[in-house]
Amino acid sequence: MSKPNAFYAQSGGVTAVINTSACGLIETARQHKDKIGKIYAGRNGIIGALTEELIDTSKESKRDIAALRHTPGGAFGSCRHKLKGLDENRAEYERLIDVFKAHNIRYFFYNGGGDSQDTSYKVSQIAQTLGYPLSCIGIPKTVDNDLPIIDNCPGFGSVAKYVAVSIREAAFDVASMAKTSTKIFVLEVMGRHAGWIAAAGGLACEKKGDAPHIILFPEIIFDETKFLKRVEQSVKKHGYCVIVVSEGLKNKAGKFLAEAGGRDAFGHAQLGGVAPIIAQLCKDKLGHKYHWAVADYLQRSARHIASKTDVDQAYALGKAAVKLALKGQNAVMPIIERKSNKPYRWGIGVAKLADVANVEKMMPRSYISRNGFAITDACREYLQPLIAGEDYPPYKKGLPQYVVLKNIAVPKKLKKRFVVG
Amino acid sequence: MSKPNAFYAQSGGVTAVINTSACGLIETARQHKDKIGKIYAGRNGIIGALTEELIDTSKESKRDIAALRHTPGGAFGSCRHKLKGLDENRAEYERLIDVFKAHNIRYFFYNGGGDSQDTSYKVSQIAQTLGYPLSCIGIPKTVDNDLPIIDNCPGFGSVAKYVAVSIREAAFDVASMAKTSTKIFVLEVMGRHAGWIAAAGGLACEKKGDAPHIILFPEIIFDETKFLKRVEQSVKKHGYCVIVVSEGLKNKAGKFLAEAGGRDAFGHAQLGGVAPIIAQLCKDKLGHKYHWAVADYLQRSARHIASKTDVDQAYALGKAAVKLALKGQNAVMPIIERKSNKPYRWGIGVAKLADVANVEKMMPRSYISRNGFAITDACREYLQPLIAGEDYPPYKKGLPQYVVLKNIAVPKKLKKRFVVG
Repeated sequence: MSKPNAFYAQSGGVTAVINTSACGLIETARQHKDKIGKIYAGRNGIIGALTEELIDTSKESKRDIAALRHTPGGAFGSCRHKLKGLDENRAEYERLIDVFKAHNIRYFFYNGGGDSQDTSYKVSQIAQTLGYPLSCIGIPKTVDNDLPIIDNCPGFGSVAKYVAVSIREAAFDVASMAKTSTKIFVLEVMGRHAGWIAAAGGLACEKKGDAPHIILFPEIIFDETKFLKRVEQSVKKHGYCVIVVSEGLKNKAGKFLAEAGGRDAFGHAQLGGVAPIIAQLCKDKLGHKYHWAVADYLQRSARHIASKTDVDQAYALGKAAVKLALKGQNAVMPIIERKSNKPYRWGIGVAKLADVANVEKMMPRSYISRNGFAITDACREYLQPLIAGEDYPPYKKGLPQYVVLKNIAVPKKLKKRFVVG
Repeated sequence: MSKPNAFYAQSGGVTAVINTSACGLIETARQHKDKIGKIYAGRNGIIGALTEELIDTSKESKRDIAALRHTPGGAFGSCRHKLKGLDENRAEYERLIDVFKAHNIRYFFYNGGGDSQDTSYKVSQIAQTLGYPLSCIGIPKTVDNDLPIIDNCPGFGSVAKYVAVSIREAAFDVASMAKTSTKIFVLEVMGRHAGWIAAAGGLACEKKGDAPHIILFPEIIFDETKFLKRVEQSVKKHGYCVIVVSEGLKNKAGKFLAEAGGRDAFGHAQLGGVAPIIAQLCKDKLGHKYHWAVADYLQRSARHIASKTDVDQAYALGKAAVKLALKGQNAVMPIIERKSNKPYRWGIGVAKLADVANVEKMMPRSYISRNGFAITDACREYLQPLIAGEDYPPYKKGLPQYVVLKNIAVPKKLKKRFVVG
């Protein structure tokens, strides 16, 4: 019988470094050809497994796989498709096992956030129930930094760096313009429920008076009066006011200030557009000229300004996932453990998927200042190492050189077609 | 009598490299202490000259002046204050001359765009009229790339690089998500009347199918039907559609699609927010999930991804301005001249301020594809060298290290205070 193969898929919102984990995983697996046959990737995440649309990564050159390390986005396609509970949709789970059996897949690597690790966990359960030997290993990923147990999530450090760098740069611009023109600058950042990304903007403030002058966290109910008072204080003192606002900012009624209306496949509201609301408020109530920016996908795809810490960790996690699988582990996820702050040292540990699935790590209240508009020293100490170091991609003709893989399909073996509901 | 002093001011919207020109100017002037005494900078641009709020740059260390080379924004403060015609507001011009006389200023360097070079020109005229010996030298700057005669404007190359890099990165993200989620991504960029910045997004497309799939130029009247048809074509063919839209996009009635209502001191409409309009249109008419981003100030302050060509040229222009002044030139502006495309070679020439003032250089129609949604090869050939090369700032703790100058005031000499109207 041929060597068992591995399946790898990317899930949910992609990041600047999810491909870095893929790179770590594939490069490491290729070093263990005695134990792992081929590495198949799911085309568009778990959907690729359900529809038997597998990509044969062995067709990719060593050079192209290496280039994944510095390529943003999800090289094999990702998806927002949450598998329902085992009882509700057993057919999907059984189909996965059928596909794995057909392609002799014994290793299941799932690279995603909390929702995705719930899937990984359920896949490991169904495999056990059906008596199919499968090593299920989750690989953490999410710009939201909201996975439990793990010290920080790969993908987050690079967004954090992008936001901190961008807010510092924009602040230099606004400071120059404030005398006769723009006095208010608002940058909207991601983070539905947890203010980790907004908090990262606070890193740009290294001494009193530095921007951002106000951070609006999703954790803190928006208080218009208190906010406007603080804006005015900043304008009086510094001549301008730079604001970071989380897309997840809520009012007293618990409603998002910017509810775009749509909902994604996970049932999450699609947000965007709180920055212009906050900016306009400053104009209407205080009369100040404003500018605002919405970073949206730019922040999570900004591989050009990725954090070296983030890149190193993302790679290490992909590598660790293979090592865990080779040790016969199941239903686990490699995690980043912080060993010390000064100097920053980290290592790789292991968490059980059962403990990770569907648990959201909120930002501790102690990371937000008492007035609710800034980060604390404890938060800074936590965040700072995560944006440390630069890891520039190669450039040609002024543009970063990212790889597009060949993504050659593995011939289908099952007669039954499967339609994803 | 002491050596004549120089005055330098930054005007209008700042850029990632206007300080680079200041650096070139100050470093060069410091090498000519036999001819140039002190370099005074206007605090908040020309307003600093009117109110006699001068900054003594000789108080800044060599190291801090060198750091201007990699610091975005306007280190001395800029302003949006257009001097009226000589006949309308002679008092302002005479006040300038009074301040220059009081501080023995014989060199006037004005770093700005078209409006600002109009001011430079008028200052040279009034000096002549009043018989005051003043060497007036303009230094070009504008992200809009709309100055005449000069091949390209410093500040533009770095915005162009930012936009091209960002759209490429976001496209990698959208491509990964398109199967089950986001199919439309819209990036709004600056450029009121000329589509230079929007065109720069087109550089990310190096082969057929690459993003951006659609560019919406201010030069091309927005045709909803034609646009939606093209979006649908792109979604069908590639699975997604990436769009760059200029803030200056207009409808058939000649109205900006996103008119924010406000107007700046130059009487220009304050724009922003066409991206969500375009995105929503794709949702309403075609049913696709979208994401959008508005880069706003992030694009023009993004020193972290500045173009090396741009940095080198901005520095050279600051340097050239001093050389022109030392040669006794007046009412001129150093310009960038393109010597060849392959390899790209450039040099410094000279233009008369009279020919530069208030003339807008539009993008040639031949730079936009016949269908109006892309750039042509001629455009690519023009733009590509301008984004070439990287020039990274130094980092500490994960953040770029930008300088904040001491900006020590020169003691006032005039009894009369001047209130800027």
